[in-house]
Amino acid sequence: MELVIGDKLYSTWSLRPWLVLKRCGADFSETVVRLNQPDTAEQIVRHSPAGRVPVLKVDGETIWDSLSISVWCAERYPEARLWPADAPARWQARSVVCEMHSGFMALRTECGMAPDHSMVGPGRCPAPASEAVAADIRRLVQIFREARGRFGAGGAYLYGEWSIADAFFTPVAARVRHYQIDLAAHGDKDGVARAYIDALLAQPDFREWERQALANAA
Amino acid sequence: MELVIGDKLYSTWSLRPWLVLKRCGADFSETVVRLNQPDTAEQIVRHSPAGRVPVLKVDGETIWDSLSISVWCAERYPEARLWPADAPARWQARSVVCEMHSGFMALRTECGMAPDHSMVGPGRCPAPASEAVAADIRRLVQIFREARGRFGAGGAYLYGEWSIADAFFTPVAARVRHYQIDLAAHGDKDGVARAYIDALLAQPDFREWERQALANAA
Repeated sequence: MELVIGDKLYSTWSLRPWLVLKRCGADFSETVVRLNQPDTAEQIVRHSPAGRVPVLKVDGETIWDSLSISVWCAERYPEARLWPADAPARWQARSVVCEMHSGFMALRTECGMAPDHSMVGPGRCPAPASEAVAADIRRLVQIFREARGRFGAGGAYLYGEWSIADAFFTPVAARVRHYQIDLAAHGDKDGVARAYIDALLAQPDFREWERQALANAA
Repeated sequence: MELVIGDKLYSTWSLRPWLVLKRCGADFSETVVRLNQPDTAEQIVRHSPAGRVPVLKVDGETIWDSLSISVWCAERYPEARLWPADAPARWQARSVVCEMHSGFMALRTECGMAPDHSMVGPGRCPAPASEAVAADIRRLVQIFREARGRFGAGGAYLYGEWSIADAFFTPVAARVRHYQIDLAAHGDKDGVARAYIDALLAQPDFREWERQALANAA
């Protein structure tokens, strides 16, 4: 099994299925395509029919898209419990994952993670003050607070135990840190969303990703 | 069970889970929010935590996002076989659905379906000639040709029998028709993609959607 990903400094979409595969204990090799290089597009298209990373090669097949790979993992590794067992929690987890997968364009564009902004290390850069970014952040705070408040009692993650939703919001946590985003100013009055962001940043698998990102960049 | 959708003339994202629910034989009511009105945003937010349609209300829960609703249907109605049974076909179906869910931005933006361009009726409007739209169309043709060529033998749809992938590409078929897009000029040299588009436009459920769209607009 081979996961083709972009630079660990920048590729937020690659981080998501990488975290999921780690959670499954999957035995996979990594092929890293350097982003922002003259031949990046050419390198990616060698691996990916959609011209994007991440891509998983398994059983002679190519599976692309971060969400499709994550759902493949849930099918292949049921023992990893990648979606919540409780039905309403599971339905909501899938809704927020899909919302992340197709939305939050202002945050993703205006608080981008390449090439001068990496996912790794402490906050360095104030967020742009646009109303569109602020609306995205308020919506994220709302998602985090509602899920933690209703479903989070069994653990530190969005639905208690770790799920694909946490993989999908880990790059958001890196953005909040890098862009020094004040969640309290966006509706997180008692720090519930902030504590969740901190839990994502403290995940051992994410810290391993960060170490590898810095080692590869050195 | 209640599905909240946007105008049937315009709401491509609403059409997708509506087709899926129809396929399941689900007993659901519809609440239609008129798009492009002064109070549209206010009306939507009454139903939808994410501020978007479609939304499904079921078992006291709210499920949002077209893909999340479709996946809920696959879980609730396994007998509807909404994903291909063959594993490689299923993995690829999920990949193309996810690619549609998060991508094809140029086609979606430059060949939009509102307010002067509806999904209903014959082609009316030449497509913009931008290279970004052309690249999206070439990629769609590639997806359709590869899936039909490898997996399509059992029927007229992308993976033979009807699947969620066909729901996701039905609004694309309406765009191809409305914007008079020449698929042959985008890699469909022997009409495989064109025949698939025609099959989507001929679906009885889609034709019912069209009739209702025209009746509501009258």
